[in-house]
Amino acid sequence: MSVFTTVTPEQLSRWLERYAVGTLVELKGIAAGIENTNYFVTTSHGRYVLTLFERLPAEQLPFYLDLMSHLARHAIPCPAPIADRDNSLFSTLNGKPAALVTRLAGAPVMSPSVHHCGLIGTTLADMHLAARTFAGTTPNPRGPQWWLETAPRVAPFLDTARRALLESELAAQAAARVQGLPRGAVHADLFRDNALWDGKTGVETLSGIIDFYFAGIDTLLFDLAVTVNDWCCLPDGGLDPARLEALVGAYRKVRNLSADECSAWPLMLRAAALRFWLSRLFDFHLPRAGELTHAHDPEHFRRILELRRQQVPPLGPLP
Amino acid sequence: MSVFTTVTPEQLSRWLERYAVGTLVELKGIAAGIENTNYFVTTSHGRYVLTLFERLPAEQLPFYLDLMSHLARHAIPCPAPIADRDNSLFSTLNGKPAALVTRLAGAPVMSPSVHHCGLIGTTLADMHLAARTFAGTTPNPRGPQWWLETAPRVAPFLDTARRALLESELAAQAAARVQGLPRGAVHADLFRDNALWDGKTGVETLSGIIDFYFAGIDTLLFDLAVTVNDWCCLPDGGLDPARLEALVGAYRKVRNLSADECSAWPLMLRAAALRFWLSRLFDFHLPRAGELTHAHDPEHFRRILELRRQQVPPLGPLP
Repeated sequence: MSVFTTVTPEQLSRWLERYAVGTLVELKGIAAGIENTNYFVTTSHGRYVLTLFERLPAEQLPFYLDLMSHLARHAIPCPAPIADRDNSLFSTLNGKPAALVTRLAGAPVMSPSVHHCGLIGTTLADMHLAARTFAGTTPNPRGPQWWLETAPRVAPFLDTARRALLESELAAQAAARVQGLPRGAVHADLFRDNALWDGKTGVETLSGIIDFYFAGIDTLLFDLAVTVNDWCCLPDGGLDPARLEALVGAYRKVRNLSADECSAWPLMLRAAALRFWLSRLFDFHLPRAGELTHAHDPEHFRRILELRRQQVPPLGPLP
Repeated sequence: MSVFTTVTPEQLSRWLERYAVGTLVELKGIAAGIENTNYFVTTSHGRYVLTLFERLPAEQLPFYLDLMSHLARHAIPCPAPIADRDNSLFSTLNGKPAALVTRLAGAPVMSPSVHHCGLIGTTLADMHLAARTFAGTTPNPRGPQWWLETAPRVAPFLDTARRALLESELAAQAAARVQGLPRGAVHADLFRDNALWDGKTGVETLSGIIDFYFAGIDTLLFDLAVTVNDWCCLPDGGLDPARLEALVGAYRKVRNLSADECSAWPLMLRAAALRFWLSRLFDFHLPRAGELTHAHDPEHFRRILELRRQQVPPLGPLP
């Protein structure tokens, strides 16, 4: 359960007076999510999600909320933050920075088909192109600098083989990093549970991409690699060639990859695996005080990293 | 039929490549509307309305499109213009400035109940409050200056009694105009056919307010008067007390009226009637070359003006 800060209907009704959303009809805590307090809010005018930010300080919120607002304005299916009468996308509720965003229909699909992977590829490329005109500058908070800071903190918990893998991969990433790849605002956490699907099985449309609170400026190819490592993954951690082709093929139809990006692809899949192996190690071995949610098993991304180091699927030119 | 500029699916498909809306599925002309060419556009991602502007030049469009975008961001139910990859809300299509906006569900209700009038009152007040932070400055193009320019052009078509009415009302408005009433961006054309309703009869919700292309900066009370003259109108042009109370009462619950606004109310109802009498006289007697659409009967607003001059319903303090 991820309601860390309780909000009563009376408190919310007063807070909603700053918005043009009508009067409160229903307020319901949302169990999913590990970072923030989330509620479903139904008013006389519509359906919204209320988020109270438990981790992010107010000064960091404009990047995330402005990015979602920018993407929604470009018809990217994502929650649109609602502006209040001061034209602000957030304010304080019960001592926490809080925002109201549109609630999207649909539910995650945990066993995606090539149909789902194609739509995710198209939409990720659409997002990258739409974000070209976004002015925010916050770097990816889980980028290479964070890897270097985090590795020594989790290393003491690892056996010799895993510590060697971590050191080897950090060295390989530092040595081989390709400079000058296209950069921009990236979601950086587009896993299956952050996409909502609506409609009949088999013809579902992507009703929304959610949870932008790990977004930042980074290489666009890194975002594609994070996405592929989750959406195209076989149970053993390997990549399903059909879903990989569907996702990357659809992406490249909207934004084709340069020769440098094609060359950097194998290393980027490894970087994306490393980033989540590190964060899961950190959450597993160094949980924050009061953290209520079950940490993910770090081994999943260790296996993915090992596999990406062995099997290096190259990207060729588009057919 | 109001498709003045033809767009083929091939032309539109090419133009849509500038957007993140997927590929064209269906294109269908819209018969309603007298000013612009409108199409329903269905793509692989969603449902939109395409507008080609036949009257407004490109330099005037930012006011209207930015206003709709601002209001949509504030959860006002209205079409949200979609930004293209240059972050622009319009560009040229077949030689005309053209915009893509979200398509709203629902249909107009031509015999509104007190339920509809209450929701219109609430939403109009919400719009006025949300627009306080809108930066646009275009004056209402059909304001007092336009009345003075238009009256001499239509007067030659009027009989003696009607000409006397027009002159008397223009003089009364000039003499009695109250300065300093709250001003802001107003819709200025919120008739029943510019509101869409969705859901079961009797519990319909307001799914959207459309057609902002007569909007401008003017007194907020003028917008309320335009709205009341249409939504609360009896067949003879008089005001239905129940619907009037529902609409104005709901408006004042969100934005109460000052003592000056209460005093100015009878004159403002007359001003709102005058504005539409004049524009309908103009469209009836001086149609533009090539205008295809049937002009509204000017007599409807002449009768309303006469009645508002006789019956002057005062506004008291809120109960």
